[in-house]
Amino acid sequence: MECFTPRQKLWLEYGGRLVMSDYRVRLLELVAESGSLAHAASELGLSYRRAWGKVKEMEANLGLALVQSEVGGAGGGHTTLTPEGHQLVQAYRRYQARMEEAMQRAFAEELSGLNAPGLPAPSFEARTPPS
Amino acid sequence: MECFTPRQKLWLEYGGRLVMSDYRVRLLELVAESGSLAHAASELGLSYRRAWGKVKEMEANLGLALVQSEVGGAGGGHTTLTPEGHQLVQAYRRYQARMEEAMQRAFAEELSGLNAPGLPAPSFEARTPPS
Repeated sequence: MECFTPRQKLWLEYGGRLVMSDYRVRLLELVAESGSLAHAASELGLSYRRAWGKVKEMEANLGLALVQSEVGGAGGGHTTLTPEGHQLVQAYRRYQARMEEAMQRAFAEELSGLNAPGLPAPSFEARTPPS
Repeated sequence: MECFTPRQKLWLEYGGRLVMSDYRVRLLELVAESGSLAHAASELGLSYRRAWGKVKEMEANLGLALVQSEVGGAGGGHTTLTPEGHQLVQAYRRYQARMEEAMQRAFAEELSGLNAPGLPAPSFEARTPPS
């Protein structure tokens, strides 16, 4: 059976500039999990250049470093989140989880009554454009 | 002073197809207010053809008529929302208002502590791309 599904896209601006979004938090989380921006980019199907551009843009708009790297060593370097990066990712994830809950609740209370339109589909092709 | 601002975009799908959004509800509301799809389209800077396409797409995806027209008369016709159109617009507006409240509350509780980053902006241009 077909049904209504509520969707939302969330993001955060700082001084009017984009600093976090559902997509960007995933990128940072993948950096934290894998220790590599190259790996995180690949997971999201992004070029390395594009992923690094997104990180730099967030950092420039925030005025904060979100990732830090340690060059060299056996594995050829390692990238982690800064303490501020970790804090922002964790806070944004809590925010997202609350918004997902809020959406399901608001949908259930305001829109779920619409789940059975119950009317036959009119023939749209035959309709005259209105004034 | 610059500060963080939470943003959201909401929409509704039915059987995986787009049937309502923040933009589309405004279009229908303008039809209800003005009695004219042409007027509503113009208010939103849309061509008449594009506005009518959006209404038809919503109707086709829902299997419901959302607008109805009365042809002729002194004013050259009049467009209104069907009862189902009114019901959907009102329910979606209540849903949006609840989500706006939820966003401000979740933001205040999870993210407003970030409003004073307090760190000097690092020099991003000089940074080496990480691994």
